[in-house]
Amino acid sequence: RIMRPDDANIAGNVHGGTILKMIEEAGAIISTRHCNSQAGEPCVAALARVERTDFLSPMYIGEVANVSAEITYTSRHSVEVQVNVMSENILTGAKKVTNKATLWYVPLSLKNVNKVLEVPPIQYARKEQEDEGKKRYEEQKLDRLETKQRNGDVILPVINPEPHTVGYSQSSLIHLVGPSDCTLLGFVHGGVTMKLMDEVAGIVAARHCKTNIVTASVDAINFHEKIKKGCVITVSGRMTFTSNKSMEIEVFVDADPFVDEPRERYRAVSAFFTYVSLSKEGKPLPIPQLLTETEDEKRRFEEGKGRYLQTKAKRQAQMQQAAQ
Amino acid sequence: RIMRPDDANIAGNVHGGTILKMIEEAGAIISTRHCNSQAGEPCVAALARVERTDFLSPMYIGEVANVSAEITYTSRHSVEVQVNVMSENILTGAKKVTNKATLWYVPLSLKNVNKVLEVPPIQYARKEQEDEGKKRYEEQKLDRLETKQRNGDVILPVINPEPHTVGYSQSSLIHLVGPSDCTLLGFVHGGVTMKLMDEVAGIVAARHCKTNIVTASVDAINFHEKIKKGCVITVSGRMTFTSNKSMEIEVFVDADPFVDEPRERYRAVSAFFTYVSLSKEGKPLPIPQLLTETEDEKRRFEEGKGRYLQTKAKRQAQMQQAAQ
Amino acid sequence: RIMRPDDANIAGNVHGGTILKMIEEAGAIISTRHCNSQAGEPCVAALARVERTDFLSPMYIGEVANVSAEITYTSRHSVEVQVNVMSENILTGAKKVTNKATLWYVPLSLKNVNKVLEVPPIQYARKEQEDEGKKRYEEQKLDRLETKQRNGDVILPVINPEPHTVGYSQSSLIHLVGPSDCTLLGFVHGGVTMKLMDEVAGIVAARHCKTNIVTASVDAINFHEKIKKGCVITVSGRMTFTSNKSMEIEVFVDADPFVDEPRERYRAVSAFFTYVSLSKEGKPLPIPQLLTETEDEKRRFEEGKGRYLQTKAKRQAQMQQAAQ
Repeated sequence: RIMRPDDANIAGNVHGGTILKMIEEAGAIISTRHCNSQAGEPCVAALARVERTDFLSPMYIGEVANVSAEITYTSRHSVEVQVNVMSENILTGAKKVTNKATLWYVPLSLKNVNKVLEVPPIQYARKEQEDEGKKRYEEQKLDRLETKQRNGDVILPVINPEPHTVGYSQSSLIHLVGPSDCTLLGFVHGGVTMKLMDEVAGIVAARHCKTNIVTASVDAINFHEKIKKGCVITVSGRMTFTSNKSMEIEVFVDADPFVDEPRERYRAVSAFFTYVSLSKEGKPLPIPQLLTETEDEKRRFEEGKGRYLQTKAKRQAQMQQAAQ
Repeated sequence: RIMRPDDANIAGNVHGGTILKMIEEAGAIISTRHCNSQAGEPCVAALARVERTDFLSPMYIGEVANVSAEITYTSRHSVEVQVNVMSENILTGAKKVTNKATLWYVPLSLKNVNKVLEVPPIQYARKEQEDEGKKRYEEQKLDRLETKQRNGDVILPVINPEPHTVGYSQSSLIHLVGPSDCTLLGFVHGGVTMKLMDEVAGIVAARHCKTNIVTASVDAINFHEKIKKGCVITVSGRMTFTSNKSMEIEVFVDADPFVDEPRERYRAVSAFFTYVSLSKEGKPLPIPQLLTETEDEKRRFEEGKGRYLQTKAKRQAQMQQAAQ
Repeated sequence: RIMRPDDANIAGNVHGGTILKMIEEAGAIISTRHCNSQAGEPCVAALARVERTDFLSPMYIGEVANVSAEITYTSRHSVEVQVNVMSENILTGAKKVTNKATLWYVPLSLKNVNKVLEVPPIQYARKEQEDEGKKRYEEQKLDRLETKQRNGDVILPVINPEPHTVGYSQSSLIHLVGPSDCTLLGFVHGGVTMKLMDEVAGIVAARHCKTNIVTASVDAINFHEKIKKGCVITVSGRMTFTSNKSMEIEVFVDADPFVDEPRERYRAVSAFFTYVSLSKEGKPLPIPQLLTETEDEKRRFEEGKGRYLQTKAKRQAQMQQAAQ
């Protein structure tokens, strides 16, 4: 579809969140279709996890987004989908790869939302494809268990914070989950959640460096718990790390099912977004260093630095491999 | 894309206007891409006309709409696009043709919006394809000139109307044209206009028969004049004819460019929509007869009857042809 | 959240209606949460009334709206909420108070929508807070009864009106109430109604003075009757009074529950909006005087003048008090 003014920031760059939402919709369609391809209980595929994804080049208002999706692996209860996004300038004909993402879906019964159904297996062209898929499946499973544990943290408000401190840029928004946000099962689409997360992360980034900012990448996101229609969700973001040219922002999503069932507020999702700051000519600008004050902030900065160095090392290894 | 609650009426049927909007977006993308495929002035394709289209089967919330578009003819200054819409139930896998539409676009220069550019010619597989296309082109050109003349009519308000009269169900809405409604040139997308027209026609139909109504077909629509961002548009509808099982509603779109340039309000578009009324089981219900009071209303009723009988005869001829 | 192009007019000023909608959403969340904070029947808080509110400074595209809400009084069956809106320019860090609003909510049972539940009492820091709240409660109750009576009026159409007459700028729109407009109970959010009211009032104001106009204030709005999903609502506005620098517009909302239950159309809400006209530099422009023709128009003009002078006197008294 054509990108509209509302899909973009004031500099005309399409929000990373808009792209994440399109990716997730494509993933949900192809995996729901696949899981219903054999006779059996009807089901809806629910997003369980998105692997780390990089935004390779910005998309602009007026460009057309071409989204294609393919199922690349199936385990007994989950589906791996590879989604590619190309931006096309229909005036010049220029096409660019904007994004490649890997998503994991789980089929939930339409009759009983707590029942996970079996996934029809796909055929692999070569045995190695299946083995590689299985390896990716095991890795993501492990990572999902780990993140579930670090999820207890909350974002406390700070009064009269200094510029460039964590408290200065931290932000949160609340959103009442309406019918258009939800699947047939009455739960929020993963893509809707990711779009809100990107919105908050973008506000944190802009508050910190006061320039035009764009999403550079999103770390793996795990969807631990479903969010029901009628919930209020609180999306909070705080900066954890800055390098010379990038900022890392941690985003939490908490759900408050306050009407139907007087259940406690719970942590539904969390993730790390990386942003860069761009000049009017689209060149990366230096980022003011994040000032850490508390012990926790210093620890999170070091952890962020670890993730940053790891990603950088991985990218260099890939480039060397590609160059050989 | 997946159909959401907001795309549909309370019975779950997707609005005809939502489908028309998707069709037009696909048409605008393919024809803008084609018109920019050769070196030259960049341009945006503007909708000039939509041929009569039937809604063959209703689409429901949760189904996926597959839209495909193809260029079938090019004249020197216009492009004919054929768009097909299929609805797919991703739970059962069932697919149905929902709609086939033919649209005509004209390339307008991005630098000078009043300049119509030349269209790169397409290659035809067979000579007959070109000849048939040329015939369709000449026919629509003639029809556009004709409708331009009957456009002077306005909808006058009626005080305390009786049920089932024209005045009882006639309706109008105003809409302030915002950025999301517009193309890169700052003019309203044809699809946005058609969606609003369907909304008004649907309200007229529902007010007349007070049941669940769905769009059955739309007559050829000609877009005589562009509508600029910031205009207020008034979309008005009145019932012109009822048969036993269908209602015909005439819809006008008037644009009021009140802020920028104090130009007079002008008629931008007009068209006839046909609706049917459905029971809870999806069966067509009888329609209360329209009570005509004035001479003009009686004349329009007869004209509507003429269109109805003509369409019916054409359909029967097609069915006989198909049966041979 | 960040203000987008669709939230604003073509001059970049955020619509008053967008702000009213955010205010109401915050109020609905905090009061629904409060009313469900004790064991008992689950409920949804429905908007009963918004006190008069001034738009203190305009908000622009790209700014972030910070909305905060606090419960300031509870009676047996109603909750008073104070909502503050700040606009923040995240590039410069500048913050401004945009709006302060007071809203009254009533808890309706999720099981039986016609049952009003009891509100858990709040604790007051000081006894005077409770007394002042009680006084505000009594005052608004009286005012609600009064406005219920003057609600019988309708807006009659005028043919070929002269510029600057009441008939020239009066406008109305129809809207089919969709799922996204509604609460869990299937009734229209008060904020959605207010946004449509502001849209119509803005079109009336723009038609009258043909310049860039912005909402300056909204009189107390009472929500007498709920509006159900599937209704068609007609929102009509007419100018009642002009001073040198402001226009007062009366807006009515009528609901037509035509599908489900063939009940008569009824008046759901009415209110007065005040607009000013701004030059390109953001300075107030003089307003062309409203030409009144009928006796009713002249009477309404005088009533509007009364409200205008009363508000002006109140404001001067407050400023003198503040200066002491």
